[in-house]
Amino acid sequence: MVTANKIRNLVATGVATMMLTVSMAVHADDGSCLWLRQAALGSPQITLDAKASPTTDIAVKELVQAWRGGTVTLQTVRKKGMKVDAFTVTIRGGVTTVSSPSDIGLLYGAYHLLRLQGMGSIAEALAGKEDFTVTETPFHDIRVLDHWDNLDGNSERGYAGRSIFWNMQADGTNDVGRITNNPLHNAMYMRANASLGINGAVLNNVNASPQMLTLGVLDWVRQYADVLRPYGIKVYLAVNFSSPVVLDKLKTADPLDKDVQRWWKQKVKDIYRLIPDFGGFLVKANSEGQPGPMDFGRTHADGANMLARALRPYGGIVMWRAFVYSPTDPDRAKQARLEFEHLDGKFLDNVIIQIKNGPIDFQPREPFNPLFGALHETSCMAEFQITQEYLGQSNHLAYLGTMWQEFFEEVDRYAGYTPYQQQSRYNAISGVANIGTDASWCGHPLAQANWYAYGRMAWNPHLDAESIAKEWVAQTFLSSEGSDVLSTVVDMLMRSREAVVDYEMPVGLHHQFGDSHYAPGPWQDMPGVRRDWLPVFYNQADASGIGFDRTAATGSGNTAQYPDEFYRLIEDVNTCPDKYLLWFHHVPWNHRCQSGRTLWEELCFRYQHGVDEARDMQRQWNSLQGQIDPDIFKDVQVRLMTQARDAEWWKDGCLLYFQTFSRMPLPDYVDPPVHTLEECQKARLNVGLYRSPTREELNRQR
Amino acid sequence: MVTANKIRNLVATGVATMMLTVSMAVHADDGSCLWLRQAALGSPQITLDAKASPTTDIAVKELVQAWRGGTVTLQTVRKKGMKVDAFTVTIRGGVTTVSSPSDIGLLYGAYHLLRLQGMGSIAEALAGKEDFTVTETPFHDIRVLDHWDNLDGNSERGYAGRSIFWNMQADGTNDVGRITNNPLHNAMYMRANASLGINGAVLNNVNASPQMLTLGVLDWVRQYADVLRPYGIKVYLAVNFSSPVVLDKLKTADPLDKDVQRWWKQKVKDIYRLIPDFGGFLVKANSEGQPGPMDFGRTHADGANMLARALRPYGGIVMWRAFVYSPTDPDRAKQARLEFEHLDGKFLDNVIIQIKNGPIDFQPREPFNPLFGALHETSCMAEFQITQEYLGQSNHLAYLGTMWQEFFEEVDRYAGYTPYQQQSRYNAISGVANIGTDASWCGHPLAQANWYAYGRMAWNPHLDAESIAKEWVAQTFLSSEGSDVLSTVVDMLMRSREAVVDYEMPVGLHHQFGDSHYAPGPWQDMPGVRRDWLPVFYNQADASGIGFDRTAATGSGNTAQYPDEFYRLIEDVNTCPDKYLLWFHHVPWNHRCQSGRTLWEELCFRYQHGVDEARDMQRQWNSLQGQIDPDIFKDVQVRLMTQARDAEWWKDGCLLYFQTFSRMPLPDYVDPPVHTLEECQKARLNVGLYRSPTREELNRQR
Repeated sequence: MVTANKIRNLVATGVATMMLTVSMAVHADDGSCLWLRQAALGSPQITLDAKASPTTDIAVKELVQAWRGGTVTLQTVRKKGMKVDAFTVTIRGGVTTVSSPSDIGLLYGAYHLLRLQGMGSIAEALAGKEDFTVTETPFHDIRVLDHWDNLDGNSERGYAGRSIFWNMQADGTNDVGRITNNPLHNAMYMRANASLGINGAVLNNVNASPQMLTLGVLDWVRQYADVLRPYGIKVYLAVNFSSPVVLDKLKTADPLDKDVQRWWKQKVKDIYRLIPDFGGFLVKANSEGQPGPMDFGRTHADGANMLARALRPYGGIVMWRAFVYSPTDPDRAKQARLEFEHLDGKFLDNVIIQIKNGPIDFQPREPFNPLFGALHETSCMAEFQITQEYLGQSNHLAYLGTMWQEFFEEVDRYAGYTPYQQQSRYNAISGVANIGTDASWCGHPLAQANWYAYGRMAWNPHLDAESIAKEWVAQTFLSSEGSDVLSTVVDMLMRSREAVVDYEMPVGLHHQFGDSHYAPGPWQDMPGVRRDWLPVFYNQADASGIGFDRTAATGSGNTAQYPDEFYRLIEDVNTCPDKYLLWFHHVPWNHRCQSGRTLWEELCFRYQHGVDEARDMQRQWNSLQGQIDPDIFKDVQVRLMTQARDAEWWKDGCLLYFQTFSRMPLPDYVDPPVHTLEECQKARLNVGLYRSPTREELNRQR
Repeated sequence: MVTANKIRNLVATGVATMMLTVSMAVHADDGSCLWLRQAALGSPQITLDAKASPTTDIAVKELVQAWRGGTVTLQTVRKKGMKVDAFTVTIRGGVTTVSSPSDIGLLYGAYHLLRLQGMGSIAEALAGKEDFTVTETPFHDIRVLDHWDNLDGNSERGYAGRSIFWNMQADGTNDVGRITNNPLHNAMYMRANASLGINGAVLNNVNASPQMLTLGVLDWVRQYADVLRPYGIKVYLAVNFSSPVVLDKLKTADPLDKDVQRWWKQKVKDIYRLIPDFGGFLVKANSEGQPGPMDFGRTHADGANMLARALRPYGGIVMWRAFVYSPTDPDRAKQARLEFEHLDGKFLDNVIIQIKNGPIDFQPREPFNPLFGALHETSCMAEFQITQEYLGQSNHLAYLGTMWQEFFEEVDRYAGYTPYQQQSRYNAISGVANIGTDASWCGHPLAQANWYAYGRMAWNPHLDAESIAKEWVAQTFLSSEGSDVLSTVVDMLMRSREAVVDYEMPVGLHHQFGDSHYAPGPWQDMPGVRRDWLPVFYNQADASGIGFDRTAATGSGNTAQYPDEFYRLIEDVNTCPDKYLLWFHHVPWNHRCQSGRTLWEELCFRYQHGVDEARDMQRQWNSLQGQIDPDIFKDVQVRLMTQARDAEWWKDGCLLYFQTFSRMPLPDYVDPPVHTLEECQKARLNVGLYRSPTREELNRQR
């Protein structure tokens, strides 16, 4: 048994550093402490009734630092049928016990206890007025963050600075300090993930460099694995299918080639020698120019299984992405199912097919990918995008909890809840991280809520978005139930994603982005470019109407790929929900929507509503002045200004463009445009894949 | 007697050109035809019962081109007491007679007849159902346009292109074609002025080049005089007081020096030899760096009288400007009265003191200059600014009829109506023109209404702004009473100037302009610069409140310069109208305004109201799509967009700046700012004196 005092001596330096961080935050908050800001009042008594380990040390440290109740006992238990990382929190007579079969379960339990404290949920129990008990069992076993980070330090679609992992020095070494000993970020990356139960990290971009698998780089991966291990986080790597050819001059990367198979076996062996608990590979193959088995006439299954065979002896897995859209079918929304359905049953059991939530590409709103529910003998996992590639990046507020809740509910209702797990060995989920070297980690200070929400839903997809938002706000702003800050920020978060949908893709009108997936570009049309990269392909706007006909009756037939109940709902233009109308149908301008408005009116109403919502979020935030740290307040305030202006830009550009087809006037409820169509069409941001446009760049173009 | 047919033969070519202009306008209207767009249906019978002259030729031509009624007779009459350019229009039994003592009166009468036709006012009379008669007598005898045009072709504070008069060619000649034979502008400048009764034009900038008085330039002036003469328009020149020194190396320009006096006498003689009906001189002396008699220890009277003596033998006049603010008193608003009051009675009777309507400098709203009413033995004239130097220039809609009506009413009520004329020989008025080489003459297509309104009020200051707006719209858009275009555009015009007041200088908070007198700059403060050029000097914002204390009790004493009734109204902070509150008082932020709102709330309300009005004007204009020529429609539409954005820029910049003093929150009715204070402060337009910023330049700064 180790008492808090002993621990304090053991980790005195570390604790002191952490306390300093917390107290700094009070004066000039840079957001770096995320949602881990609670501070103990005295010296809490923490008792460890378990074998001490680096992991239990962390659990004790966290409680010593932040727990404000009576004695807590951390206790390992054996309980039949209990998942190894599940835990139980019990409060009886004011005395608290956290129990779990594993030390990582104890750590999760400790964080959960602090979350309950932060939410004010256990005040009565701690006062001895009632008993409290809860058992938390993770729904997904594998809960992974995908970092689309490159060895050169850029992060593709990362809008919060540079990679936290890859920071090459002039001498060819990699500075791992961003993770391990940056004072502001001290252990924060691991602590934050562990507090949510995130237990895996893919350390590099799916557009993977073969260099990742050189021994030099693998040794840095090992260093990260060593640092992440006590927090229960496994490392994974995205691999380039051509690695054997590029790194060791093999003649082919054909997965059926013996030399290739031998190369991968040896590479995996090398990895596991360095990292015995290495998680496995993530593969983007035969997608957007990446190499893959189909280059050699093989199938996705041939490729994935070759890697899976190499990893299986060590317990490693292959996450094989289904984000494919080779132009065999004119409708990209159909491609994943077309390519993968016929391979069902052909994948080894340590292969998981990783499927983006929707069938196009991380739009503000998509129906679920029809591949969900179509594979019955293959493990599948959803891929969410936490970083807001198409949702205003780090300039706009867009809380994605509501989007993911919508996905889970829809896939549950129409495809049977996470049916892809029925016969599969693995139950997994992944999210493309929004994390970078910005002090506040995620660019937009409120975008931390998306990291938080992803972690919470990875643990438990039944949690509702609003409860999660409350948790995040309560802990991040140390605000309690009933406070203005809590109710206001939660309300802002809850309306934010729908606001973005309104001004970027109302009524299901998707992929209308210009440069950098940021600005409006519904007019974009370039000769020689794949049609399904172009906004005009998706809007199909003409004098007769607008929208992409995906019906079985007259369109691409994508609707028929869905389960029956959903198919019937969306196939009929009269029952298809307004939110998906232009996703599945080409509709006349005067079509009567379910809202009662004509299609043109509905578009006008929605674009305007997006602008109004952006303005209202400004009002809400401004009302909190004085109740939020001034630096954070100002930072968010200016981003909300940018969002409001961008919303108007989207509204003006899209409505003026579509008006050239509809030839209908703007209803009175639409603010008259303040941008000309020509100005919107002329705008060029040119900011590349790695960052959001700055306000100055936007000023020059608007 | 000359019939229409004869005239048609005489002027066939000219008429054909004019008809072409009118018919072109139907297809692609560039606004160049101003309010002279009516076209005859057949061949009207026009009878001249007077001695034919170039002026009566024009009268007949105009009627031939545009009259749609029965026979018109133009008839000279002698009528005792009738001013020479007055006229009577009579319709009896459907037969129309225009009579006047002079041929210019007949021309004015012809234009008035067409105006009545355009307004639909005489339809019954023309149908023989009733008799109609009206006698029109001009209130002001001298009705002058001041063109602030330079010999290099620029027009100071001219926002509609370049000078229409000065267009030097490589060979050193001046192309007078812009006035005389530009096909689009064929005689239009003269016709437009004559249609309003404007009878004088100062052809150059008050910041005058001595070169204007060289014989070469005077010969071009002669050419203009010859062209303008048949339309009843005299030419005047602005002169530089140092001309004798600069042009002929005299040792001094001292007005009491005999050589100087001789020089001017000779110069005037030269002028009248070329131009027997030359109007006279306009002088800006000892003002903003211009030379003047005070440089030699003499008075304004000494200087003006010296010139007046030279001009008197020929009937010429001196218009001597009272726009002076040498820093002898810290309050610039007092200076004109301080410098001129004691000289009353010392000016020769062909000197007129020309006084800007307000005491500062053409702000969107000013109380009348206290010099009005203070001179009892000296002729005075008001100087209006038709060009919108401080009212959004040619980017914003600001109909000034309402401003001038307000001036006339106020000076009437509190100083006795135009009392400056009681003992004076001359009754005059001047307006700084908004005319340039733009096809539509005035930059903003709707800014033509200001040229029109100035002319109408110069003729008759009792006309109300709304009636004049109706006249202009009816004739310019050929729209009739009851039409959407008429009612909508008139309403836009009528609210437009107050909208600009709201977003540029609410509650009397004047001179808050930054660069180019266009953008907001309330924070502008530069060491070494005259305090009374700086916005901070005028707003005096601090923690205690805002506004310029001009009271007699505690301030500059400017209030005491006003007549008693007005003094009592404005001296007391509780009776001072809100519109002048911060003009005359420094007021605490929580002062209760007459509106019932606190001062801070009132400022917020007004700035927001300006934005809302700008948006509403957009809505109004947009509702007319299809009823207005598409080119003009689009041009105005984009300018209104700019105005709406600028209004928001003003609101954001000013409120955020003043909020640093008031430390009060923005009320809910204020749209949350979308510009940061820092952005507004950083903006630099750098467009000089000669043009408005373009939309592109504005885009870069907002």
